[in-house]
Amino acid sequence: MNNSKQEKQVAVVIGAGDATGSAIARRFAREGYSVVATRRNADSMQTLREEIEAEGGVAHTLACDARNEEAMVDLFASIERDIGPVGVVVFNIGANVMFSITETTARVYQKVWEMAAFAGFLTGREAARAMLPRNSGTIIFTGATASLRGGSGFSAFASAKFALRALAQSMARELGPQGIHVAHSIIDGAIDTAFIQDNFPEKYASKAQAGILDPDHIAEQYWQIHCQPKDCWTHEFDLRPWQETF
Amino acid sequence: MNNSKQEKQVAVVIGAGDATGSAIARRFAREGYSVVATRRNADSMQTLREEIEAEGGVAHTLACDARNEEAMVDLFASIERDIGPVGVVVFNIGANVMFSITETTARVYQKVWEMAAFAGFLTGREAARAMLPRNSGTIIFTGATASLRGGSGFSAFASAKFALRALAQSMARELGPQGIHVAHSIIDGAIDTAFIQDNFPEKYASKAQAGILDPDHIAEQYWQIHCQPKDCWTHEFDLRPWQETF
Amino acid sequence: MNNSKQEKQVAVVIGAGDATGSAIARRFAREGYSVVATRRNADSMQTLREEIEAEGGVAHTLACDARNEEAMVDLFASIERDIGPVGVVVFNIGANVMFSITETTARVYQKVWEMAAFAGFLTGREAARAMLPRNSGTIIFTGATASLRGGSGFSAFASAKFALRALAQSMARELGPQGIHVAHSIIDGAIDTAFIQDNFPEKYASKAQAGILDPDHIAEQYWQIHCQPKDCWTHEFDLRPWQETF
Amino acid sequence: MNNSKQEKQVAVVIGAGDATGSAIARRFAREGYSVVATRRNADSMQTLREEIEAEGGVAHTLACDARNEEAMVDLFASIERDIGPVGVVVFNIGANVMFSITETTARVYQKVWEMAAFAGFLTGREAARAMLPRNSGTIIFTGATASLRGGSGFSAFASAKFALRALAQSMARELGPQGIHVAHSIIDGAIDTAFIQDNFPEKYASKAQAGILDPDHIAEQYWQIHCQPKDCWTHEFDLRPWQETF
Repeated sequence: MNNSKQEKQVAVVIGAGDATGSAIARRFAREGYSVVATRRNADSMQTLREEIEAEGGVAHTLACDARNEEAMVDLFASIERDIGPVGVVVFNIGANVMFSITETTARVYQKVWEMAAFAGFLTGREAARAMLPRNSGTIIFTGATASLRGGSGFSAFASAKFALRALAQSMARELGPQGIHVAHSIIDGAIDTAFIQDNFPEKYASKAQAGILDPDHIAEQYWQIHCQPKDCWTHEFDLRPWQETF
Repeated sequence: MNNSKQEKQVAVVIGAGDATGSAIARRFAREGYSVVATRRNADSMQTLREEIEAEGGVAHTLACDARNEEAMVDLFASIERDIGPVGVVVFNIGANVMFSITETTARVYQKVWEMAAFAGFLTGREAARAMLPRNSGTIIFTGATASLRGGSGFSAFASAKFALRALAQSMARELGPQGIHVAHSIIDGAIDTAFIQDNFPEKYASKAQAGILDPDHIAEQYWQIHCQPKDCWTHEFDLRPWQETF
Repeated sequence: MNNSKQEKQVAVVIGAGDATGSAIARRFAREGYSVVATRRNADSMQTLREEIEAEGGVAHTLACDARNEEAMVDLFASIERDIGPVGVVVFNIGANVMFSITETTARVYQKVWEMAAFAGFLTGREAARAMLPRNSGTIIFTGATASLRGGSGFSAFASAKFALRALAQSMARELGPQGIHVAHSIIDGAIDTAFIQDNFPEKYASKAQAGILDPDHIAEQYWQIHCQPKDCWTHEFDLRPWQETF
Repeated sequence: MNNSKQEKQVAVVIGAGDATGSAIARRFAREGYSVVATRRNADSMQTLREEIEAEGGVAHTLACDARNEEAMVDLFASIERDIGPVGVVVFNIGANVMFSITETTARVYQKVWEMAAFAGFLTGREAARAMLPRNSGTIIFTGATASLRGGSGFSAFASAKFALRALAQSMARELGPQGIHVAHSIIDGAIDTAFIQDNFPEKYASKAQAGILDPDHIAEQYWQIHCQPKDCWTHEFDLRPWQETF
């Protein structure tokens, strides 16, 4: 028998990358949630698990391909059965690519959609299935600038991010009146990641002036969204550094 | 040798259904375009071909699965080689379904995307490849209410239509400065189709008061969009009956 | 007795400037409408009247301050009484200014609103009053890029253009089901005017490549909007040169 | 000499009504801000002042017509001179009215704009003038459903709320890179006010199920927005009860 099941709610982070996903996982662990963090490769989350445990938190880092329906169904079933009731789910898989339309292969267009939209659908549906019997829970989808406008070179990426936003909107309108809070962020700026450091060093240098988003600050916003009382829910909010043009 | 190649531009209608797609095909045929109309089943377009030929027009009705990359590459290559230069392409495949999020199967979510978004991508990309060497042409994507807002029960459909809109926006921003006019319609209302007649008879009865969209009128609008001079292009426009709430 | 009243419908252009407003007036005159064109100064419309009359059309050029309620009430009453039934009304007064927020005087903020929004309200309301008894008519409001997004330096202008868009949307939702077609354009680019020629000569030079909007082409689009049948109305449409970034 | 000037930052609430404005004032007072609350009638804020003082806070309740330029210039000048540096400004004046377009008087259209948009402009400009020398501060404008879409009967109200949103957007784009955080809320639902209790008793009854917004919860969100670090600012966010359709 699993006593912790009655004691701790679970926060699931699908796509627990080194930056934003990990920060969100730590933030919810710090509030007493059992964290389930997933990536395709579980090894990549060892540091995250150790960080959470070092702070006295509970973390389960699981390998899971979020584009695989069976894997996602199993994941949520096993969480509810073995770990605890799912209280929060964050979908955080990105897939930023840039190709002119004529150089966008069908494979790229499909893969980007699978990662950023289809995996989001599987996540959202399984989260809803887990939460609906309790009429409570929070589901947050991570969006981007490309969720709001297409751009030259962004046919694939914007298509996928628009799709994810449509999912979030549709789910919010369907599940809100059933007690489930569905939110969608618009991250409009570079995040403090190794990728930005390696590929956009000038942008990264603006970190000293708060010119790139700190993952811990994003995580704090997600926590605040989850804390909103039922009469005062946000569905969509943007997050950007002060000096970012938009 | 095909002399008509030098004489007639080609209007391609991907998804030449009995109502809107056929009306668009007839409209462009009437202006002297060689029409290429496609559906999965060529037989279903026999009436369309006869109508166009009866008016003295030229119609090629071809079976083509617009979700099949190879088929679409071949289609545009054979049109350019055997029929004439592609001047207009209209993507008109819909996939309206309604399911609650928990009852949306992965298969449905994917199939709707394949029809409404992925096929649109293949269409748009091949159209762009054909048109770019000439720096001219018009590409019109048919959107819907669900292109602008998600809704309860529309997780799959809105995701696909949002994705198509992102594609259209991205292509417009990329291809406009290269001389190609990319437009996106928002059809916000029921169209005069057998489907509406059979399934929504009360709605259909409003036809007498112009309460549903006449496919020939939609086709006229598409023709007008194509006729816009280069200094005065519309990217997005809505079409709805006068009494429709929005 | 005024026989023309039974014969000719009236097209009213509020803000018949030398470029767009005049082009719209000529376009409707050419289709057989009696045109009523207004500006604050009637003398400035002499050329317009002569052009219309030279083509065999009917033009009334009237001085009218569109921000003056009494003047606008009188204008529409006298048109209906003396000239003919109002079939089309185009509101075309702009007020593009650019000031940083701290340098925007209260006077500027108010004047811009009076010209671009309040005058639009008076125009729309009097047009509606004239048209409602017949349950028919078209009202078109001219918008701009700043109707859709605010920008640094555009606090006053965007506030006024957003307000006009809200008016157009609200009127469309209220008056559409009463048979009146309300539309709103988004003119996203420079128009071929003396102002652009004098102040943005480099931009103006792009005219040779269709880089600025031809007023006659805008007028043609407005005419097409007016021609839309009742089952197929556009509420909002953008117009921009092919090479314009957006 | 005013020692408190060095110690306490000032939170200014323009339009400190009994519900939302008062709740915001109390929230910031609780965090150690000197509160300046304004309404046209200072007497109506006596309870608010007593509440804040009872909690050990500092409140200045001042009569001020926010539509009067001179009064607003004087207000901010006297705050900076006598009370302390302005750190936060919340503009919270609403003006919800509903009239069909033909029954909207010019007086109503103008008055609604003066309250909801022009007063917002004066507030925003004076706030910016006070904050710019320090390159810091937060300005929050309270929006509504009508900030995003016009509706039948809402020509006046939506025009004013759209204008306010354009102001907020323009100011955010101009002032963000100068260190000032400008945000805009979309309050999409009924708030727990005497007005709702008196006029919409059925709606008010949903309070027991968290069906109307609690002013203290809105205030908490405004506080959170103000707390966002510079790399992670929200410009726009919606707030609505869980069961509200949107």
